[in-house]
Amino acid sequence: MHSYDLAIKGGTVVTAADQYRAEIGVRNGKIVEISENVSGARQEIDATGLLVLPGGVDGHVHMSQPTDDGTIMADDFESGTRAAAAGGNTTVMPFALQIKGKSLRACVEDYHKEAEGNCYVDTSFHLIVSDPTPQVLGQELPALVKDGYTSFKVFMTYDDLVLSDAELLDVFQVAKEENALVMVHAEGHDAIKFMTRKLEAAGKTAPFYHGQSHSRVAEREATHRAVSHAELVDVPIVIVHVSGRDAMEQVQWARKRGLKVYAETCPQYITLVEDDMKGLNMDFEGAKYVCSPPPRDLDSQAAIWEGIRDGTFDIFSSDHCPFRYQGSGGTGKDNPKARTSFKWVPNGIPGVETRLPIFFSEGVTKGRISIQKFVDLTSTRPARLYGMYPQKGTIAIGSDADFALWDPGMQKTITQDILHHGSDYTPYEGFKVTGWPVKTVLRGKVIADDGRIVGEKGYGAYMSRGFSDAF
Amino acid sequence: MHSYDLAIKGGTVVTAADQYRAEIGVRNGKIVEISENVSGARQEIDATGLLVLPGGVDGHVHMSQPTDDGTIMADDFESGTRAAAAGGNTTVMPFALQIKGKSLRACVEDYHKEAEGNCYVDTSFHLIVSDPTPQVLGQELPALVKDGYTSFKVFMTYDDLVLSDAELLDVFQVAKEENALVMVHAEGHDAIKFMTRKLEAAGKTAPFYHGQSHSRVAEREATHRAVSHAELVDVPIVIVHVSGRDAMEQVQWARKRGLKVYAETCPQYITLVEDDMKGLNMDFEGAKYVCSPPPRDLDSQAAIWEGIRDGTFDIFSSDHCPFRYQGSGGTGKDNPKARTSFKWVPNGIPGVETRLPIFFSEGVTKGRISIQKFVDLTSTRPARLYGMYPQKGTIAIGSDADFALWDPGMQKTITQDILHHGSDYTPYEGFKVTGWPVKTVLRGKVIADDGRIVGEKGYGAYMSRGFSDAF
Amino acid sequence: MHSYDLAIKGGTVVTAADQYRAEIGVRNGKIVEISENVSGARQEIDATGLLVLPGGVDGHVHMSQPTDDGTIMADDFESGTRAAAAGGNTTVMPFALQIKGKSLRACVEDYHKEAEGNCYVDTSFHLIVSDPTPQVLGQELPALVKDGYTSFKVFMTYDDLVLSDAELLDVFQVAKEENALVMVHAEGHDAIKFMTRKLEAAGKTAPFYHGQSHSRVAEREATHRAVSHAELVDVPIVIVHVSGRDAMEQVQWARKRGLKVYAETCPQYITLVEDDMKGLNMDFEGAKYVCSPPPRDLDSQAAIWEGIRDGTFDIFSSDHCPFRYQGSGGTGKDNPKARTSFKWVPNGIPGVETRLPIFFSEGVTKGRISIQKFVDLTSTRPARLYGMYPQKGTIAIGSDADFALWDPGMQKTITQDILHHGSDYTPYEGFKVTGWPVKTVLRGKVIADDGRIVGEKGYGAYMSRGFSDAF
Amino acid sequence: MHSYDLAIKGGTVVTAADQYRAEIGVRNGKIVEISENVSGARQEIDATGLLVLPGGVDGHVHMSQPTDDGTIMADDFESGTRAAAAGGNTTVMPFALQIKGKSLRACVEDYHKEAEGNCYVDTSFHLIVSDPTPQVLGQELPALVKDGYTSFKVFMTYDDLVLSDAELLDVFQVAKEENALVMVHAEGHDAIKFMTRKLEAAGKTAPFYHGQSHSRVAEREATHRAVSHAELVDVPIVIVHVSGRDAMEQVQWARKRGLKVYAETCPQYITLVEDDMKGLNMDFEGAKYVCSPPPRDLDSQAAIWEGIRDGTFDIFSSDHCPFRYQGSGGTGKDNPKARTSFKWVPNGIPGVETRLPIFFSEGVTKGRISIQKFVDLTSTRPARLYGMYPQKGTIAIGSDADFALWDPGMQKTITQDILHHGSDYTPYEGFKVTGWPVKTVLRGKVIADDGRIVGEKGYGAYMSRGFSDAF
Repeated sequence: MHSYDLAIKGGTVVTAADQYRAEIGVRNGKIVEISENVSGARQEIDATGLLVLPGGVDGHVHMSQPTDDGTIMADDFESGTRAAAAGGNTTVMPFALQIKGKSLRACVEDYHKEAEGNCYVDTSFHLIVSDPTPQVLGQELPALVKDGYTSFKVFMTYDDLVLSDAELLDVFQVAKEENALVMVHAEGHDAIKFMTRKLEAAGKTAPFYHGQSHSRVAEREATHRAVSHAELVDVPIVIVHVSGRDAMEQVQWARKRGLKVYAETCPQYITLVEDDMKGLNMDFEGAKYVCSPPPRDLDSQAAIWEGIRDGTFDIFSSDHCPFRYQGSGGTGKDNPKARTSFKWVPNGIPGVETRLPIFFSEGVTKGRISIQKFVDLTSTRPARLYGMYPQKGTIAIGSDADFALWDPGMQKTITQDILHHGSDYTPYEGFKVTGWPVKTVLRGKVIADDGRIVGEKGYGAYMSRGFSDAF
Repeated sequence: MHSYDLAIKGGTVVTAADQYRAEIGVRNGKIVEISENVSGARQEIDATGLLVLPGGVDGHVHMSQPTDDGTIMADDFESGTRAAAAGGNTTVMPFALQIKGKSLRACVEDYHKEAEGNCYVDTSFHLIVSDPTPQVLGQELPALVKDGYTSFKVFMTYDDLVLSDAELLDVFQVAKEENALVMVHAEGHDAIKFMTRKLEAAGKTAPFYHGQSHSRVAEREATHRAVSHAELVDVPIVIVHVSGRDAMEQVQWARKRGLKVYAETCPQYITLVEDDMKGLNMDFEGAKYVCSPPPRDLDSQAAIWEGIRDGTFDIFSSDHCPFRYQGSGGTGKDNPKARTSFKWVPNGIPGVETRLPIFFSEGVTKGRISIQKFVDLTSTRPARLYGMYPQKGTIAIGSDADFALWDPGMQKTITQDILHHGSDYTPYEGFKVTGWPVKTVLRGKVIADDGRIVGEKGYGAYMSRGFSDAF
Repeated sequence: MHSYDLAIKGGTVVTAADQYRAEIGVRNGKIVEISENVSGARQEIDATGLLVLPGGVDGHVHMSQPTDDGTIMADDFESGTRAAAAGGNTTVMPFALQIKGKSLRACVEDYHKEAEGNCYVDTSFHLIVSDPTPQVLGQELPALVKDGYTSFKVFMTYDDLVLSDAELLDVFQVAKEENALVMVHAEGHDAIKFMTRKLEAAGKTAPFYHGQSHSRVAEREATHRAVSHAELVDVPIVIVHVSGRDAMEQVQWARKRGLKVYAETCPQYITLVEDDMKGLNMDFEGAKYVCSPPPRDLDSQAAIWEGIRDGTFDIFSSDHCPFRYQGSGGTGKDNPKARTSFKWVPNGIPGVETRLPIFFSEGVTKGRISIQKFVDLTSTRPARLYGMYPQKGTIAIGSDADFALWDPGMQKTITQDILHHGSDYTPYEGFKVTGWPVKTVLRGKVIADDGRIVGEKGYGAYMSRGFSDAF
Repeated sequence: MHSYDLAIKGGTVVTAADQYRAEIGVRNGKIVEISENVSGARQEIDATGLLVLPGGVDGHVHMSQPTDDGTIMADDFESGTRAAAAGGNTTVMPFALQIKGKSLRACVEDYHKEAEGNCYVDTSFHLIVSDPTPQVLGQELPALVKDGYTSFKVFMTYDDLVLSDAELLDVFQVAKEENALVMVHAEGHDAIKFMTRKLEAAGKTAPFYHGQSHSRVAEREATHRAVSHAELVDVPIVIVHVSGRDAMEQVQWARKRGLKVYAETCPQYITLVEDDMKGLNMDFEGAKYVCSPPPRDLDSQAAIWEGIRDGTFDIFSSDHCPFRYQGSGGTGKDNPKARTSFKWVPNGIPGVETRLPIFFSEGVTKGRISIQKFVDLTSTRPARLYGMYPQKGTIAIGSDADFALWDPGMQKTITQDILHHGSDYTPYEGFKVTGWPVKTVLRGKVIADDGRIVGEKGYGAYMSRGFSDAF
């Protein structure tokens, strides 16, 4: 008789506070022992020389999201969670998007259908509120929060998603009453459209000009506006995908005033720059880097690192939003509308699989942050912020046995051919990293092993969540 | 034969930089000599013991403005400019308001008809753009600027005036192209309506709650938004009637970034507080103090003084916007709709006549600012900012012979019965000041003398203006 | 045969990142197992309903320190570490003070003699450099660092301790070369003496005036100066016992510039105020609260809480510096010199025993900070900052089995008669707290139990330390 | 019989507030008329096409200052004031330096002897307090202030001048009691010496390293310290010769807190950079640019312009401190000690003659500041700040008839051969300017005309001064 289903032996356990040599015993998918020596397990993993990290929790991914313009998101739940698993993640949080005019509950249910039976890692959904009718505000949202959908996202731009200030305030008010956490895509819609018209009028239609249309000013202004609305309503919010110094300073200023404003940043803002959207020669290759907010410049990257170090940023997510560059049904190079203007290039890049290695390598390996900080921003804090802690996000007795076994010295070059996502390219092609997740363990089962997916499709489960610790 | 039409003898001349004993000779309405001794004038004014200041330039007054709800503005050009003259002013700048759906040019012409032949002091109009149609943006505004209407005002709140962000950006763009200066009423419309609904739902309908509905957050957010739009378009703007620290800090922050953001404040923000709107016992007397943005608190007053001293504020205007408190056709106490909710109380208080004495007394007499600063903010800077300098705003050879002869030691208690405006009350009833304008001279003619209006109706002329020095 | 010497059963383990139900197995003074269920231990402690925290690490205590004016420090190592143990601490860091003109090494050895065989908790010494001769700088300090004395303290005030700027720079330079961490008592000596003379000249000699002599300006100025010297030398420093907003803002400003400036605060700055030094009626009772920097006011307390929450403060220490109030050989009430002027009142108050309960109660119980933050500032961070981690400061496999078993709901009123320190009073007399350390465990042995000291004198060991993680 | 001794005809009068076409009548050295047309003057100057500015007031010049190391200051009062006159100045303020161990009164008297009968422009002395004995503090300074020496300078560096913090506080206290204004040379002495030793130890002895030894940190720290002392004493001070952003931000921060801290900057900080001290190839030519604080970099120049525009800087002085580069008795190239280390290179560069043209050209001609601002910083504010207004510093009835007649379009290249100072070089050799003072008028007499000195030696008078307007 085995005391344990699994033992992780010989490794170094890392949490958001600590790092120490220990072995881990797992039973029924839970961590039940951490000690000098664990024996009596049915399965043993030799983690000698490896770091045993909590499995990555990616708080911001888009998968199987419907679009209204014929483009197709490159990842469904199957490919998206496969990529996540390969990248050291055990939990991802996709968005259930309300289609305008439709019941939000119905949209959520459709989304569950997409996910069910298809996932390699655990999931839990944020809601996107695009049409805050009295029915949605007064009945659907409160009921959905009670059912464990405890976070919503709202958009301050995109024609089909943008909410007016009045609508934002209404959603914030519901969030306050229900203890739900609102995530805000903060870019000013009218400012973007104003710049877009100006650029188009000047014949500036290449993908590169996406960056100028989604200006820092527009991001900063919307951030200030969102913060102000949250102050008025007295409700915590998360400013997602902060791209640089301007918006970041608004977050810092808000906190200094005692407001509960949380912030997220992403790999693209520490690795890419606006000029990547130039492609080779202002050509369409630049479309591979189009996302919103767009990458800025080296000073913005430095600012983001400052914010990561000084605690401005709570979580580091991928904002995985994958499209294919080529092919019919694809959305990039062969999309005739996109070639007429940057404004038709789908906004989003793939990243769920590369988030952890890039951040580890640029952060921990290069000495910018401690490994505790890495674990905190990529696993512990997202789990806490979105109401999944301590089930997810740490290595502790009673928690899910989710691990990323990490080889801190392994050198890899990121290329499309080693990745598992549905996109046909990666914006990080050729990017060299040191440090790599060599095994991913979800609730005691190895789901990815040295780049091979060994988990079972459908083993990934859906989680209802509790309230955020943001309150 | 007289060399001069008028001599001001025995006084102390004050400009935005200097103060010295000198006499002034005037010919044809212009200053032609400043010297130790001026003789040979047809008329002499003995200014012994008095300060000879440039006549006040009030850059922000409302007169004869049409309303759409049956209320009547308490001042037309006749009473409004009479009050201005009595208060030491020689120039006022009312607003020609575009009525939605109407041509702006036509509205301007109607407004001229109201003014013509009725004014005691010189005037020049700002335009209010409430309906920026392509026609207005593309043709009327450029043509009006060329005709000397070189400043526009836009509103970020009020149901009938509010512009969307897209419209604001369009107006800013026209201003940039035409070198016109945009004045912004910066309060966030949706935030105000959100708070209003909340307060009404809680049965909080007394005038006092106006202050809570027009929150500091709403003012600050809109200020940030306006500044951001101006940054995007790269055009100077004026944030008018800043009420306290929050909005002021946005202006300071913008300047620190190198933006050309100018700021105005008003007497109500250094003398009144939110609690004045409580009236005696949360009663309707509070309506006498309702204006937007509303007065805040003592710390806000302190902040405004800081901003005045450190150069944050460029101009000190009255935002004179007079209503009657009593009577049919009036808008206050006997307005049944206003009694149902603060939101129907007309926003505005009279102040053109008391602006200079209040600011002199609180600022110069109390030692908070130099008299040079007083002259600068109340006369020289508004004249420069709105394109009337050096014709207006200083005492220099060649300038209009506009003076306020000031007795710095005269003590007065402000009461309704000594004022000349059309309102039936003053929010400053009982306010004691030291320092008073004893004579007002417009282009060489005495128009007010010890509280009596001695000028001729219609002597006040209209001025086309040049470009602002804001650019 | 027992697998374990000790098991902590039924409790909730808390670290700087986590909180979870688990049991702990201890062998040879080390933690060897954390699991759902630990059995087979010689001794079991039932921690049901209790929090199992890492033992407190107090990074700043004074014991057995020689004085040159006949006063006697109220705690030697025996009483001081007894008090520490009773208050939930397992490690304290006293200062080995260099007597001017003496070898620092010799002073350290004398100090060891005082400690040896007398301690109830583990100790490690910081050095106080009062006489940085070439011999001290060039030979003694480098050798002492190699021997594990990896932190020095320097003073910017006190006649017998103050270093000139030139000396500070020299000590900083040695610290940089040796990877030692410098702690700075930042108050400006000449500014304090200037104010002291002024106050004395005005007959203001009561203990209360100590607070005015040690002004915020003097603390802020010295903080800025210390930071600047550290910037010039490019070496990390710790600003100890920050008392309020002014000095704190200098720390924040330095960090914003990328400098490695760490900060400590203490219980007195979140509980006491300047007015406590008034005693009952400006009498000598006020001397019980005299310490440097002195407590300030309620806004300063609020500022300190802001800094604790936002990460400005790295560690929360007691600055235990105990004197007796009464009696011959004592230093307070019966000290004739002290009665002639506040400047002769010994600077320091007792606090090693009350640090944890006060901070827990005011912080965790009152909802100002999480319990993880509490553990971090009082145990984990001091252990890391002073080179004792992971031996000290956490609950992890391989760490010393040091615990404070905490009853989060226990209500206590702090009074002198329940304390174990050598002072004859506590400045916190009557202070009510919720949350209390009911058992203290040092390397697997219970040393304090419900207020009784059950450890053995001399069980507390001396630790050589590694380098700080500040570098 | 002539009504006027002199008329300035056809020019454009400029003051700190205004600009207008007018003519000026002068009698007995005073301005008695400003008007459209002045006739009846014994002498007429045709100022057609010229600006008529108030004569320059240079608040910071060194002349005939004794040195203790055999070097000789390159200007005595004769050559120094000759240069000043040629550069458009009518008043200069040299320093009467107390020699350690000597009575300050005696030093002042010696200094008067040097000046008497030798000056081309008016002068008034600041005092330098280098030895604040009780006699100096208690008797000499109060008496000297009563005699019109209403400003002192103190040094925070230089072996023979540096005051301790205790001494600084004492001098500030006297200033407060006597309403005298203290000017502070703010650089931290020990920090400079520390860096100097480090640099010398590394063999870095070329003049270039002067800049590194006088670091920004040392300047900023001393500025903060001076401001803190002033705050403690509650007395206004002037931070002289601010070199860049770091020190400037301390001034801004102090003002934001309501402190009366005034600031001066100089031509070298908007034109020169640290690299100028490299000479051609790290050679001794760099010594021509050695001054303290040293010039920094282009960002510092940008910062200084920001501070000029936003009102941080009150006055723009030359800090004229001239040495000869060549020759025996000289101090530069042929000074053997200076060649052994930068620390022996005399600190100072000539600039009284080029201050106005450089600032006009870089500021007004290039559109960075208005001409009113130029007049304010170079004439009106120094006159006010140092108690000479309205006798000096403006063009107003009753003021001294001091003018710089300025040709705003004249292009000049600054070269040593067109200058009148005693130095044998100018650090601005080859610098091109647009705008030049073509005539200088002192109390109604032309003293410089197109580069020729036409005034009489000794016509320049000494002025006792009133109190500063800084209080």
